[in-house]
Amino acid sequence: MLNTICAIATPRGAGAIAVIRISGEQTLAVVSKIFLAGKKNLVSLPANTVHYGTIINGEQMIDNVIITLFKSPHSYTGEDSIEISCHGSLHIQNKILELLINNGAHLAKPGEFTLRAFLNGKIDLSQAEAVADLIASESEAAHKIALQQLRGGFTKELAALRDKLVNFISLIELELDFSEEEVEFADRKQLLELLINIQKHIFTLIKSFKLGNVLKNGIPVAIIGEPNVGKSTLLNVLLNEEKALVSEIAGTTRDSIEDTINIQGITFRFIDTAGIRQTDDIIENLGIERTFKKIELADIILFIVETESLQNSKDKIQEIVNKYPDKKWIIVINKIDTAESVEHKIENTIGLPTVSISAKKRLFINNLESMILSQIDTHKLNVGDTIITNIRHYEALMRANESLQRAVGGIESNIQTDFLAQDIRQSMHYLGEITGQFTNDEILDNIFKNFCIGK
Amino acid sequence: MLNTICAIATPRGAGAIAVIRISGEQTLAVVSKIFLAGKKNLVSLPANTVHYGTIINGEQMIDNVIITLFKSPHSYTGEDSIEISCHGSLHIQNKILELLINNGAHLAKPGEFTLRAFLNGKIDLSQAEAVADLIASESEAAHKIALQQLRGGFTKELAALRDKLVNFISLIELELDFSEEEVEFADRKQLLELLINIQKHIFTLIKSFKLGNVLKNGIPVAIIGEPNVGKSTLLNVLLNEEKALVSEIAGTTRDSIEDTINIQGITFRFIDTAGIRQTDDIIENLGIERTFKKIELADIILFIVETESLQNSKDKIQEIVNKYPDKKWIIVINKIDTAESVEHKIENTIGLPTVSISAKKRLFINNLESMILSQIDTHKLNVGDTIITNIRHYEALMRANESLQRAVGGIESNIQTDFLAQDIRQSMHYLGEITGQFTNDEILDNIFKNFCIGK
Repeated sequence: MLNTICAIATPRGAGAIAVIRISGEQTLAVVSKIFLAGKKNLVSLPANTVHYGTIINGEQMIDNVIITLFKSPHSYTGEDSIEISCHGSLHIQNKILELLINNGAHLAKPGEFTLRAFLNGKIDLSQAEAVADLIASESEAAHKIALQQLRGGFTKELAALRDKLVNFISLIELELDFSEEEVEFADRKQLLELLINIQKHIFTLIKSFKLGNVLKNGIPVAIIGEPNVGKSTLLNVLLNEEKALVSEIAGTTRDSIEDTINIQGITFRFIDTAGIRQTDDIIENLGIERTFKKIELADIILFIVETESLQNSKDKIQEIVNKYPDKKWIIVINKIDTAESVEHKIENTIGLPTVSISAKKRLFINNLESMILSQIDTHKLNVGDTIITNIRHYEALMRANESLQRAVGGIESNIQTDFLAQDIRQSMHYLGEITGQFTNDEILDNIFKNFCIGK
Repeated sequence: MLNTICAIATPRGAGAIAVIRISGEQTLAVVSKIFLAGKKNLVSLPANTVHYGTIINGEQMIDNVIITLFKSPHSYTGEDSIEISCHGSLHIQNKILELLINNGAHLAKPGEFTLRAFLNGKIDLSQAEAVADLIASESEAAHKIALQQLRGGFTKELAALRDKLVNFISLIELELDFSEEEVEFADRKQLLELLINIQKHIFTLIKSFKLGNVLKNGIPVAIIGEPNVGKSTLLNVLLNEEKALVSEIAGTTRDSIEDTINIQGITFRFIDTAGIRQTDDIIENLGIERTFKKIELADIILFIVETESLQNSKDKIQEIVNKYPDKKWIIVINKIDTAESVEHKIENTIGLPTVSISAKKRLFINNLESMILSQIDTHKLNVGDTIITNIRHYEALMRANESLQRAVGGIESNIQTDFLAQDIRQSMHYLGEITGQFTNDEILDNIFKNFCIGK
């Protein structure tokens, strides 16, 4: 029997209300000891109802609260659960938690409520991970992906892939039973076709990881350029516009994501901005190491040049750009307030997306933002395709793909049936690892240790 | 008709869950536009039930949530109300709030939910104030007082006082109707007795304010003494013991109350501790201004002396103590690990509570703490007597008392009946101001502007 656990589920701190969550077989027994609501008896109250009453410690009143009653299996964890909504002082929150512990509940470990939801079959492992992602999501895009995963889109896709393999594996294993008769119940040509199709599908998922990962964590952007070309001014303009936007709803400023901007729901994260703002990144020569490091870390590079020095810089720019053909480059011509636009000239010359702005006068910043946004393939996001954001899923898919590759090679070279069966079984195992069909304590520990307490 | 309002009610930040609260006539209509739960229709669902479903923005899903349904008048505000319990990411919280606003709700002003509870007669004004105090309470004592006030103890006491006056005022006003006949329906002797009794009662409440105020805000303690006598060491020992205690429950550290200690549920707040710790408060002469300032601000003064210099300091100590006869002094003899105890000698000499410790070796610190605690009259707190903590109540009681005093003087000097009636009416008015029976927008604004949003 699992312990009955409790934790504060709302964000740390004082607020109007706070919620303390209890789950486990002893939930009703524990809460009954500290909750009074007239003559009501928790055990006989219907599920999914709320009740006003008092939390008491012996004779002493602790708070007037509202409790919500959930009964197994119709709760988040699948167990009997209660949520206590109390006045949000830290003192009261801690006091109630202490009382629950003194009356037999245990302080929940990080993610333990969600772990139980998984163990009790309410959600699979990829959905459990989506819960953590959802809570951590700071942008529209990250939120969209996590929510889709939570709702089981990815799970269904994986189940479909596995189902297709199940048919064949049973036929192949039948062959093993009749191995002395050399029959082929599983049509090798059809199997080959299926495996290649599944590989294609898995490959699409694997490819989506690069996008998913950056959407989740923010797309790294570097701003480079000669000294005094306006890098720090541009950065401040980009960051400030965002701040003004975010603080429209009172009290919702997000200090934790200092150096990111959000363009149409997608987060862009500036690399090494502290350095830029403090020193304006003084470089003698564009070829120095620090700039290269930033370029390597970035997906998108804003290469700032001044109108004046543009013609002289062309070769240098081309040289650096050529070194990193995989990166997305945007040439930003700054200080157009002091000169005539030369946008078209350079565009023709270097063949890269180019935009003219004045950071100082805040001119055409929206053009630059659109240009940055256009570097991201948001199509997948909008059509609701599955996007992998989790490195664990990525690795499992890679391994599943390798096993399938061996099976494909095996069929082509007429491998022994038992080896073929093993490869297919293995790929099914890796797919099952993602949803938690096959798992172990180490995997679970790794996943749930990063959850917050109370989830 | 009041607007329908909404706000995030849980503490700012990301957590496992967050709660968004909506209240007002349009609550069900607004939430119906963004909440889907199968074929359920919010309007026809019973009150005090919870429902799992999805928050949507048109076609787009925002989150899987649980909503709790309260129906007028059985809700906190007395209006139809809904609480949306969502995944606690900032993005989701803001998004749902935005959706509610886009669908007709208004962002609640600070304390607006509680203001409505008051306006709708669910609680009186002193109870509304207790809600804010309860949320802000950081110690057992502050929490106890606020909870008692919230539960209406104070309200009942004031109502009893007013009821007693009501009888007499009606008799007196009857006299005014028959003024030409010079009758006395209200027995002047009985009235005088009553007024004096009420005054006594009010005086007890007024007196409790000093205790209530310090219990609410922490009792100010100063540590003074010659340089190098161990002031900063002692302070750190006192603060650290508390910290170790507080952090027993994981994740409940309370950074905001850095320089306070909590002894048996009562908060003691050290004055000017930054100074002590940074400089060890270097003073040439105990008579300097800075020390005097600290003494003036404190209720309790820990006067630290060394065993060695004790005999020589006696006169100085006596001199300073004599200047502030109202303060509570504790003589702390430090560094007893390096010398023999001389506790009894000084106690006899100066006649003040004295305790011998070694801050460095952490010896007898608990004796000092008991001594500090014994300076506070916690009796009232434990028997559940009403303790005033609010300056507004204090001032209203003072004014009520003045009016009663005039009435008493009036009776004694045979004042005209209409003046007497006026004084009694006025004292009733002031008592009624506390519970909000008589109020105005300015008073309400002043009270609720200090609430948090969402309460």
